[in-house]
Amino acid sequence: MTSISARQSIVTLDLEGVLIPEIWIAAAEATGIEALRRTTRDEPDYDVLMGQRLGILAEHGLGMPEITEVIASLTPLDGAAEFLADLRSRTQVVILSDTFEEFARPFMAQLGWPTVLCHRLVVEADGRISQYRLRQPDQKRRAVQAFHSLRYRVIAAGDSYNDTTMLAEADHGFLFRAPERVIAEFPQFPALTGYDELLGAIADILDVDSD
Amino acid sequence: MTSISARQSIVTLDLEGVLIPEIWIAAAEATGIEALRRTTRDEPDYDVLMGQRLGILAEHGLGMPEITEVIASLTPLDGAAEFLADLRSRTQVVILSDTFEEFARPFMAQLGWPTVLCHRLVVEADGRISQYRLRQPDQKRRAVQAFHSLRYRVIAAGDSYNDTTMLAEADHGFLFRAPERVIAEFPQFPALTGYDELLGAIADILDVDSD
Repeated sequence: MTSISARQSIVTLDLEGVLIPEIWIAAAEATGIEALRRTTRDEPDYDVLMGQRLGILAEHGLGMPEITEVIASLTPLDGAAEFLADLRSRTQVVILSDTFEEFARPFMAQLGWPTVLCHRLVVEADGRISQYRLRQPDQKRRAVQAFHSLRYRVIAAGDSYNDTTMLAEADHGFLFRAPERVIAEFPQFPALTGYDELLGAIADILDVDSD
Repeated sequence: MTSISARQSIVTLDLEGVLIPEIWIAAAEATGIEALRRTTRDEPDYDVLMGQRLGILAEHGLGMPEITEVIASLTPLDGAAEFLADLRSRTQVVILSDTFEEFARPFMAQLGWPTVLCHRLVVEADGRISQYRLRQPDQKRRAVQAFHSLRYRVIAAGDSYNDTTMLAEADHGFLFRAPERVIAEFPQFPALTGYDELLGAIADILDVDSD
């Protein structure tokens, strides 16, 4: 009888690998520094990974201006902007990313300024990235909990280790374009690869009243 | 030394009266039903107010199709789209409204699909709005608490009684285009009237590191 009014939902999406390329891999390619290729796919401890990255940048004398230049040359993944626009016309969407506001901004401009919850860098007057500030540990899972506290049903999609606590906390979790090892390690999350497929899976859930 | 990296912020904005016209007043004008003019500015108890509104609609045989037609003819307030676009390029913005997804959607399309947390109607197959579902009581204040749990500094702006708990819970609260009685009753919140003024006040806060 009341099927037209299903439960209110929010979709939380990972950013890198899901909507945009991996920023540090792109930085590795643009700078020729192979060691910047490591991501959370390779090193699950984000703090260890970030310490390595900032150390490498400092060693090579690379600061915010050089990294900004790399990011400004990148675009969202093929089809990502259309997927996101379609999704935002159907339900609420919040991007949860372990990147930094400074890195995300050029992409958000290209994606129509969706809401993104992430972290922030500490940049010195000379452009050196001296530090990073994680807003909070395990922030993706905490965000899902926060939306639950607001009585939303949460549908989540991501590709990496740092997404799996978000997927587990959500009412529905999807792996999207995840590497084989992540898919093998987390068989409880359906693994999808196409935007149409992900949009369809989300739309199916939106139509169901699971109150 | 680290002043370039101020605390991460989210701006929460009321919708009706701040970015778009009061939907029920517009509905009153389009339908000629004067009793629909009452808003939360007149009746602080939202539940009482909504019961009255749905009763009036049912009495007059007005359902979702008729209301949708009214809403489709409305546009955001002058300057609202530009204000919001500017704000979203500077920081994260979430709209907190006690309206319903069905009413908000045509405006969100015109405003570039910002994230909006609101409520939902129960619409029957014949178009009759039989009920409304408040996602949760005092949802605006709860949303500010949720963003605090994610370690965001929250800057809030609204115009009505139903915004005041949000303004009080936020780190910085502004009344925007509020009626005199609300301004008089809540002198602790700075009262602003122009988008430039509000944008300036928010920008000043964003630049300050209050960790």
